[in-house]
Amino acid sequence: MFSTPKPSHAPDLIVVDWGTTSFRAGLLSGDGTVLERRESDNGILKAASTGFETVLRAEVGAWLGAGCPIVACGMIGSRQGWREVPYVEGAATAVALARGALTFSLADGERVSILPGMRMADGIRDVMRGEETQIMGSLQDGVAVLPGTHSKWAEVRGGVITGFASFMTGEVFAALSQHTILGKLAEGSDHDDMAFAEGVRAGNDSSAPTHDVFAARTRVLSGDLAPSGVSSWLSGFLIGAEIAGADRVFKAPVNDSIMIIGNAGLTRRYQDALRQLGRATSAGPADAAFVGMQKIARMMG
Amino acid sequence: MFSTPKPSHAPDLIVVDWGTTSFRAGLLSGDGTVLERRESDNGILKAASTGFETVLRAEVGAWLGAGCPIVACGMIGSRQGWREVPYVEGAATAVALARGALTFSLADGERVSILPGMRMADGIRDVMRGEETQIMGSLQDGVAVLPGTHSKWAEVRGGVITGFASFMTGEVFAALSQHTILGKLAEGSDHDDMAFAEGVRAGNDSSAPTHDVFAARTRVLSGDLAPSGVSSWLSGFLIGAEIAGADRVFKAPVNDSIMIIGNAGLTRRYQDALRQLGRATSAGPADAAFVGMQKIARMMG
Repeated sequence: MFSTPKPSHAPDLIVVDWGTTSFRAGLLSGDGTVLERRESDNGILKAASTGFETVLRAEVGAWLGAGCPIVACGMIGSRQGWREVPYVEGAATAVALARGALTFSLADGERVSILPGMRMADGIRDVMRGEETQIMGSLQDGVAVLPGTHSKWAEVRGGVITGFASFMTGEVFAALSQHTILGKLAEGSDHDDMAFAEGVRAGNDSSAPTHDVFAARTRVLSGDLAPSGVSSWLSGFLIGAEIAGADRVFKAPVNDSIMIIGNAGLTRRYQDALRQLGRATSAGPADAAFVGMQKIARMMG
Repeated sequence: MFSTPKPSHAPDLIVVDWGTTSFRAGLLSGDGTVLERRESDNGILKAASTGFETVLRAEVGAWLGAGCPIVACGMIGSRQGWREVPYVEGAATAVALARGALTFSLADGERVSILPGMRMADGIRDVMRGEETQIMGSLQDGVAVLPGTHSKWAEVRGGVITGFASFMTGEVFAALSQHTILGKLAEGSDHDDMAFAEGVRAGNDSSAPTHDVFAARTRVLSGDLAPSGVSSWLSGFLIGAEIAGADRVFKAPVNDSIMIIGNAGLTRRYQDALRQLGRATSAGPADAAFVGMQKIARMMG
């Protein structure tokens, strides 16, 4: 009865989420289907010495013949990346990110656009590169967390990223686990649900973190925490403290359902912690950065 | 006209402040004069393999002939030390610490007493070994801070240590300086008064520490903090956060003049930070552990 338009599965856009230590690329059709993908450890730290164009051709050279434009986001646009792309200042829409892109041509005429990061100078002062694109690809309204070495929390209102804040959770966990007495007390790093939950509570309630985190030691000494639970307790403590901190940074308890954008294990921990603290959660889309790059690319015309 | 009693300068007591990485001993006269002293890196980590009695004889053997009793405090009484001395539980007086001492005889008949540490199980849960002796040697009433790897804050009322709390300030500073992006941003560690003061304010005001500490990076990126100031800023941040945390742990703003017990550089930083935050400070006695051991030894009879 009706003729439904066939979704186009022709290659339309090449997207590259190019971070410090990882390279993730996708060949997208017009309807957002990921036709092919490439992932490697050719992040900017490694790619800088080889040369960014050389690495790009080695990774996605097979896709270049069809004349698709290339869009990249992440640390590739930082001072240590391929071309430094100035931050968009203040609250940003997808249009503002599209306008801030830096476009240039490669030797064979291919067009590459590197998207900008964001910088907030008023209120919460912070910067990010790459996460803004994931956020744009994930939600129109609400609060999102992107767990990681430097976790990001962001608030989006009507398609505008109105505020965001970084938390050094992953990096502080690694530093404390590997280089303090807490790590020396820990036996193994298998996940322990109970110890994690106790850590979440302690971290969320903490009013003196460098004191309260020492409770891991006190509790081991008194037999209240097994050495095998120290790593999970510490992880829970830092995630619990991050959630409390996000509540305070955004000036009010975060009552929205919180969208968790990310992959695998860490995302699961944040889901557990948020639910334990009575928060509703939702999961962001797979390939949020790819979705965001395609959305922003459309606004570049 | 009056015959004043001559202070006795005869050797009376051997005191040993025996910590994890340091050995400090004094030969005291009855009036507390330090007649001779020994300091080395023969802390318990190093001394354990040599044998504690062997190390003690090597360090202070020359003082042993006069029959003075030997009193020791610190990690020497821990499970990793010479003899494990159970903690005194709860608020403690000098008498309670004297009663908790473990006394034993060496091969040649010398008597050694190792003082206990303290453990609080109610309210603030924490433990310490060695600091309680320094505190007993320093004040009868008030609040004291002992800066260090694991800083201690303590409240003393009428000669009773009523509460104390550890802060991992020194160890967290080392871990963050050496093993995170903040350390990579830092150029050198020369002290910078202005950066330190800014860090103190940021740390004292912080309500989301793993976010707020990241401001060091944001400020460097925006040119508001020189890379040469990062180390001082971070030190100030953690000390400022410790002071705010101590206020919260002890449930009320600490209005007493705060006695700073310790030596040299770190003590100076705490003095600067406390004064910046409008607190009055005083300096604890030199050789606070020696004074405390002599006071407690008198109560052992």
